Amino acid sequence: MKEDEPRQPLDFFFRPRSVAVVGATPNQAKGGYAIIANLLEGFPGKVWPVNPGRKEVLGVPCFSSVRELPEAPDLAIVFVPAQRVPGVVRDCAERGVRAVLVESGGFAEVGENGAALQAEMVNIARGAGMRLWGPNCTGLVNSDPPLFTPFMRLPGMSMRVAPGNLAIVAQSGMMAAGFMIQYLLAGYFKVSKACAIGNKADVDETDVLDYLADDEPTRAVVLYLESVTRGREFLQAVRRAARRMPVAVLKAGRSEQSARAALSHTGSLAGNDEVVEGALRQAGVLRVSDFGELMALGRAFSLHPEPFRLSTLGGNRVAVITVTGGGGVVLSDLLQETGLRLAELAPSTLERLRQEVFPEWMGPSNPVDIWPAVEQRGLAALERSVEIVLSDPGVDGLLLLPFASRMVRDYPFAAMGELLGRQDKAVVSWVFGDRRFFEQFDRSMEEIGVPVFPELRLCALAMHGYLHYARLRRRVAERG
Amino acid sequence: MKEDEPRQPLDFFFRPRSVAVVGATPNQAKGGYAIIANLLEGFPGKVWPVNPGRKEVLGVPCFSSVRELPEAPDLAIVFVPAQRVPGVVRDCAERGVRAVLVESGGFAEVGENGAALQAEMVNIARGAGMRLWGPNCTGLVNSDPPLFTPFMRLPGMSMRVAPGNLAIVAQSGMMAAGFMIQYLLAGYFKVSKACAIGNKADVDETDVLDYLADDEPTRAVVLYLESVTRGREFLQAVRRAARRMPVAVLKAGRSEQSARAALSHTGSLAGNDEVVEGALRQAGVLRVSDFGELMALGRAFSLHPEPFRLSTLGGNRVAVITVTGGGGVVLSDLLQETGLRLAELAPSTLERLRQEVFPEWMGPSNPVDIWPAVEQRGLAALERSVEIVLSDPGVDGLLLLPFASRMVRDYPFAAMGELLGRQDKAVVSWVFGDRRFFEQFDRSMEEIGVPVFPELRLCALAMHGYLHYARLRRRVAERG
Repeated sequence: MKEDEPRQPLDFFFRPRSVAVVGATPNQAKGGYAIIANLLEGFPGKVWPVNPGRKEVLGVPCFSSVRELPEAPDLAIVFVPAQRVPGVVRDCAERGVRAVLVESGGFAEVGENGAALQAEMVNIARGAGMRLWGPNCTGLVNSDPPLFTPFMRLPGMSMRVAPGNLAIVAQSGMMAAGFMIQYLLAGYFKVSKACAIGNKADVDETDVLDYLADDEPTRAVVLYLESVTRGREFLQAVRRAARRMPVAVLKAGRSEQSARAALSHTGSLAGNDEVVEGALRQAGVLRVSDFGELMALGRAFSLHPEPFRLSTLGGNRVAVITVTGGGGVVLSDLLQETGLRLAELAPSTLERLRQEVFPEWMGPSNPVDIWPAVEQRGLAALERSVEIVLSDPGVDGLLLLPFASRMVRDYPFAAMGELLGRQDKAVVSWVFGDRRFFEQFDRSMEEIGVPVFPELRLCALAMHGYLHYARLRRRVAERG
Repeated sequence: MKEDEPRQPLDFFFRPRSVAVVGATPNQAKGGYAIIANLLEGFPGKVWPVNPGRKEVLGVPCFSSVRELPEAPDLAIVFVPAQRVPGVVRDCAERGVRAVLVESGGFAEVGENGAALQAEMVNIARGAGMRLWGPNCTGLVNSDPPLFTPFMRLPGMSMRVAPGNLAIVAQSGMMAAGFMIQYLLAGYFKVSKACAIGNKADVDETDVLDYLADDEPTRAVVLYLESVTRGREFLQAVRRAARRMPVAVLKAGRSEQSARAALSHTGSLAGNDEVVEGALRQAGVLRVSDFGELMALGRAFSLHPEPFRLSTLGGNRVAVITVTGGGGVVLSDLLQETGLRLAELAPSTLERLRQEVFPEWMGPSNPVDIWPAVEQRGLAALERSVEIVLSDPGVDGLLLLPFASRMVRDYPFAAMGELLGRQDKAVVSWVFGDRRFFEQFDRSMEEIGVPVFPELRLCALAMHGYLHYARLRRRVAERG
């Protein structure tokens, strides 16, 4: 494990060699049970339960205090009532713990008394040179080596988090846990790290982003934030991260009423939204307004985190190949809203479509409506039109609108995958039709690196994300 | 069947007593097979295949021409190459057919020659007093009595369309078919009618809306349109329908590029979007920009097509009960975007929440974050907070943000259903968490009349739709 030794403070959270769980219990109704049960299942390092009322927890000898532990753990996870937390943090400091993750709630988010407790424990931690994560959060997940800290019991969860390149950061605890469960169980994306920063009394979004910007497996990051604590430093971290990987942000608290809601939720000020907005745009960050959108960008980038090859610096010209004329029309509106344009296909492209794909009576244009051609020539019309359209230098991205039915079994996925690899242009697919074939379609497209969404709005958003990031990287490369 | 006798022209499409299928064939690769196979399965009236090359189709005697049919059918469905269609329409006119549905493509959408064919067949139909539906469409669906005309074979489909109160109208053929399949198979909503009007050479959106405005089982209607042919008449029909039922419209062709795409797709002009927008708004129609949004409103209204009881004429004050503070914050932004407000809970409501639901350390506000209370008191905290919040006269609508897990089994659905019935306020639910429990949650909420969406954006949209329609109906009732 020598080469895996923690090197910087946040490593003790994400890659600890040993973990103490303060509040561990065999009582399955409690979060302290979930935390230790999840850990024992997947975490490869040492695990010590701490609870003065127990001799052992789940077969592991239990200690009455962190101070009694045989070694100083890299990480202590704390899930006990708020009033007891400062004392536990003091114990951690005395025992030489490197990092403390407080998952308990009842701090700044519940008023003055809680805020005082929070300030007290931060002071203790800082005085001892320990970093403190939380409170009021579900903690974090690392996919390799496996670490899964949330206080909900999810049997086999550590094993089910497939290592990938996406990092997810959320300010809200429950939310992040809900997300991880919902999307990870569904295999929506593969993650490098996922975490909830809660009240961020010490470790905040800037620390985490700074860490992720240098994290080797992480190639894309999506953040849900209710506030930005250190504006200037955050902007620097975002800029640095965005030079290496796509960054997408859902920043809540855009309206006055939601800013008030954020204050009562995590005890933090939402900040001046216009300033945040401008700064994020300047840094090249993608901004969205709903969780589903954030997750969609996460999925798109987890499938293809690299910038695509653009014909021009402006690269925003999209071709649409569709079996539904109506879908093409609605998508055109949505593309325009995100600043993308329908590509003007070259005369030679149109001529090839006319000769090789379309029925005699039909003139091709963009969106390329291939339904009559599919009726006449079968699915070869799809493969051929993809090849023709992708080779048009005036096309930066391609949106596919196919129909899911039992025909999915015969879709030319492998051939399309080869065409995609050859051109390296951004490709996103919608799926509609018979839901029974969605999953099969989805999986087959995933294998060739194409994200699939059941909503056109999300397709337009993902394409925007891909081309936006491709332009950003190209500018960075050209200007240095 | 006397009382079911068709009374007005469009009845011959939606409730024919007999149907001829021109182009019927036992060749399973052809649309003419799907049409007759679907019909024979569910349609209760007479079905006559017409095809000069066959003696029988699927065991039913086949006729070489409509002119040879033993009786004049109420409806003839035509699926033969475009050039042959005018001749078939002439045969229909001679035989006294009451209504002709042309599903074939190859008309105005493919250029001048097709447009000429289209004009020719319309002239023939009008000269004979027949209404003509299409061309270039998948036709229509009635749930009671069952009629299912699309040219895709869906075994058992007629039987699976559960009768309901929602009508779906789409200009685009494939799209409508795709929708119906996707959403109907998934049990997303129950419909009264669903139809695709295609090129609308004769019967257009105005005719259909006029028909639906008086259709007894139809209590809500969603329309997807690429163009509006007769602006003034359409507006009248929309106004009339909107006085009786909620109407939602996805009008494509908002941008110049999509208007061009619409032209090539169904050969129709998108019209001046600003005029259309203003007119729709004036009529009280809900306008959306993606299919998923249109379907979400359809689902919301199919579950609860009646206006809700509002405390005031302005009724736009929404309470949020959530297990995720973050979800509440993001939702607050989305609510504000749709013109809704977070309700200011009455002092007595807050006091009751404090006394009966919240842990001592936590002060209630809206969004009402019940997670700590659920941890302390279990799901009783959910039920109790729903009761308290719904009885606040300053609350017009309630958004629920629960967490899906195995706890779903213990959710107080029945008790909540009773509370909902007592107050009759708009209620919409989000769902997140463990996907394995989504369906169970969804079905249980459906039973108590609450639509569930996995995206906050759609929750805000549905709540907006409910309250918008409640205000509209209240104004109509007050002003007459």
